[in-house]
Amino acid sequence: MAHDIVIESSPGLVTVQQATNIILSVAKRLSPVTVPLYEASGATLAEDITAPEPIPPFPASIKDGYAVVAADGPGEYPVVGAARAGSYSSQLQLQPGSVVYITTGGPIPDGADAVVQVEDTEVVEDGASNDVKKIRILKTVTKGHDIRPVGFDIAEGASVLKAGERLGAAEIGLLATVGVSHVEVFRRPKVAVASTGDELVDPQDGTKLGKGQIRDSNRAMLLAACKEHHCEVINLGIIRDVEAEVNDILDKALASNADILLTSGGVSMGDKDFVKPLLQKRGKVYFSKVLMKPGKPLAFATLEARARGASETSQMLVFGLPGNPVSSAVTFNLFAVPAIRYLSGWVEPQLRKIQARTWSPLRLDPDRPEFHRVTVSWELDDGTGHPGFVAKSTGHQISSRLLSMRSANALLELPQAPAIVPAGVLVPALLIDNLAGMPPAKTPVSSKDIPSPRP
Amino acid sequence: MAHDIVIESSPGLVTVQQATNIILSVAKRLSPVTVPLYEASGATLAEDITAPEPIPPFPASIKDGYAVVAADGPGEYPVVGAARAGSYSSQLQLQPGSVVYITTGGPIPDGADAVVQVEDTEVVEDGASNDVKKIRILKTVTKGHDIRPVGFDIAEGASVLKAGERLGAAEIGLLATVGVSHVEVFRRPKVAVASTGDELVDPQDGTKLGKGQIRDSNRAMLLAACKEHHCEVINLGIIRDVEAEVNDILDKALASNADILLTSGGVSMGDKDFVKPLLQKRGKVYFSKVLMKPGKPLAFATLEARARGASETSQMLVFGLPGNPVSSAVTFNLFAVPAIRYLSGWVEPQLRKIQARTWSPLRLDPDRPEFHRVTVSWELDDGTGHPGFVAKSTGHQISSRLLSMRSANALLELPQAPAIVPAGVLVPALLIDNLAGMPPAKTPVSSKDIPSPRP
Ligand SMILES: [Mg+2]
Ligand SMILES: [Mg+2]
Repeated sequence: MAHDIVIESSPGLVTVQQATNIILSVAKRLSPVTVPLYEASGATLAEDITAPEPIPPFPASIKDGYAVVAADGPGEYPVVGAARAGSYSSQLQLQPGSVVYITTGGPIPDGADAVVQVEDTEVVEDGASNDVKKIRILKTVTKGHDIRPVGFDIAEGASVLKAGERLGAAEIGLLATVGVSHVEVFRRPKVAVASTGDELVDPQDGTKLGKGQIRDSNRAMLLAACKEHHCEVINLGIIRDVEAEVNDILDKALASNADILLTSGGVSMGDKDFVKPLLQKRGKVYFSKVLMKPGKPLAFATLEARARGASETSQMLVFGLPGNPVSSAVTFNLFAVPAIRYLSGWVEPQLRKIQARTWSPLRLDPDRPEFHRVTVSWELDDGTGHPGFVAKSTGHQISSRLLSMRSANALLELPQAPAIVPAGVLVPALLIDNLAGMPPAKTPVSSKDIPSPRP
Repeated sequence: MAHDIVIESSPGLVTVQQATNIILSVAKRLSPVTVPLYEASGATLAEDITAPEPIPPFPASIKDGYAVVAADGPGEYPVVGAARAGSYSSQLQLQPGSVVYITTGGPIPDGADAVVQVEDTEVVEDGASNDVKKIRILKTVTKGHDIRPVGFDIAEGASVLKAGERLGAAEIGLLATVGVSHVEVFRRPKVAVASTGDELVDPQDGTKLGKGQIRDSNRAMLLAACKEHHCEVINLGIIRDVEAEVNDILDKALASNADILLTSGGVSMGDKDFVKPLLQKRGKVYFSKVLMKPGKPLAFATLEARARGASETSQMLVFGLPGNPVSSAVTFNLFAVPAIRYLSGWVEPQLRKIQARTWSPLRLDPDRPEFHRVTVSWELDDGTGHPGFVAKSTGHQISSRLLSMRSANALLELPQAPAIVPAGVLVPALLIDNLAGMPPAKTPVSSKDIPSPRP
């Protein structure tokens, strides 16, 4: 399938859409693994789950109250027993003219056909040790009232979850409900991350920067991003602009069984940019430039990996991301995130798109489509008198300025054109962060909302 | 502050808004802790961060090319040296009439005042070992062209991040950029989770269910949910409907220094529902019922904790969640999530609200406001000819049916009324999941499916 889109012989410029198609056509889903339920959160299900038993497994009360014979109607009745949740008794047989105390989730006794909630009853006579001896039913109920029949919530054999569904908290709860203690999910991708560049200093080194040096921000950023995307990460450190070191890092990534290698830097037009030529030498390069702003230089390649002693080979995807931090962050989101999701089993791995109104005029790039970093928020009035997303630019968009990624939760998809998009125009935006933390629609910040000063 | 909203003397029914106000007024932010940068992802910053150095710290090239004297203009020039990224040489002095090879991020040599990208040059004469001896400049550039001056991305002393900001991948990158290796963040809440009920069986027990038994789904669900919200979790297991066991679990939670205890079940009207009376006896109960559907029974209390040997007391928040799995999930999202976020340092801890159009008619509850579980997706046409969110119900909303939480990413806020909301109406929706996984908008809603003009 992949061979017809390989442009290995003349590695060149592709569009964003072509790059995405190539990546998703080359990527392969990881093998399913069986994990304990408590470790499955965030993973994608690799098997269909059906209910081995009906839920509820017995007719159960929806309320705290009394199990009755509906036809008996209002009046005084003796309480002949209790059917509390978890205390089933097969001896409990309800005869017309009597009632049984029952709690929420309690099993309906044989003979009963409805429940009257405690709020619709009165105590007539107390018995020993807190038990009630006689009650008055105040309300007429119909047969089946406040009873969940067997299988009402989930029928026996019914589909509970399907392969390809992401396991959030509710889905974990569903698996627990049907007694699944171990579940087959797609394996989490293992991602190795390395930064390249003679100018780079590790941010953990407290030393002052020397002349010509900068701190390596990409590695910490990409490792954090991969963890957010549920990957297992391997920190391969900083490598110098020396061919042997770049070569060595490819070996290290392969030896660690990484599914994906992310490098940043070394893919530009400089004479010490060894990433691209080495990938061409050792693997298959599918493209090396994408027509976009920021992030034009971007190499995507595969390397064959052979596990020690194994007869089958597996592939490692390599993203040679640009060195500029913003280019690195944007291309990671546009290209590596869908790949990570695809490997992880996502059925729809692409970034989700919404539309948002521009808050201020934006100048387009005449030559390249641009991914403008914005913070979107939902406003009751998006400027048209209707509710909608409003997109505020994060400021100067030069690809070295990582501050333009601060609080960015979306990338505006701006077309290439010698033009300016006015404020108030609806523009497509790709979501790159959870909107749970987007700026709230209203801004009445009370004193309570400001973080307390340090103690 | 809290005392005026305490309704301890008659623990009773509050509205959702009252409950939220009480919780956020009682909650206290956790103390800041200093963590290594690599562990800070997902946390909220507890200190302001300014840049100790300008970025870039030196005038830097934006391109691979040649550092030039702009006034020289097009023509042939000898290449008198190289200024590669990370290889600063103070000997490198550029005289008019010559150029210096430079790579992206490389330091601009003294004397140079512009960069000409390699694409706008031609090689005239090659030197030894791959070096270029003479080039032709093809284009006129102005002073400062393709140079980032000192502090262009971040000025020295400029604000980089503020206390209260959430640390995503980009923010981690920013901290690395300015050399922050350890950072002060709000501590992650420690949440203990227990399920109550004689009817409960641990889902890890492969045993067949006995008569009257069901599997405990709440604990696995709540533990997963707390982990999604960056909490440290403590699994306290299942406790029986015995007063001593409930009492014991309060001690265990306090002994483990939990900031929050989540119990589910035991807060209803049953005679074995011991959670509420024990909380009243041992702590301060602020409310015990919330006017809402699902999840009416919900106790919120604080217990005082005194660390061994410490003179100061701290408080543990206790949420006595309802036992029905859906009620438990919904009240967790509505009430425990904002509390977790507040403790974690979020400036705006409330759930984010959007508006979505109903996909199908929804019957309102006449007596209680309802939180109807839906899956929202962004559609190019939400039925009005305009883009917007469309909300599809997850089906039957009975509170025992956990399938109604499957794939739910929002809760519609439906008012109480004896009425039906038609399809195509714009309704407020609280986000309870990351929209990164919402159904893609590939099936545009046709206007005939949702008949409603834009109001
Ligand atoms: Mg480099
Ligand atoms: Mg119970």
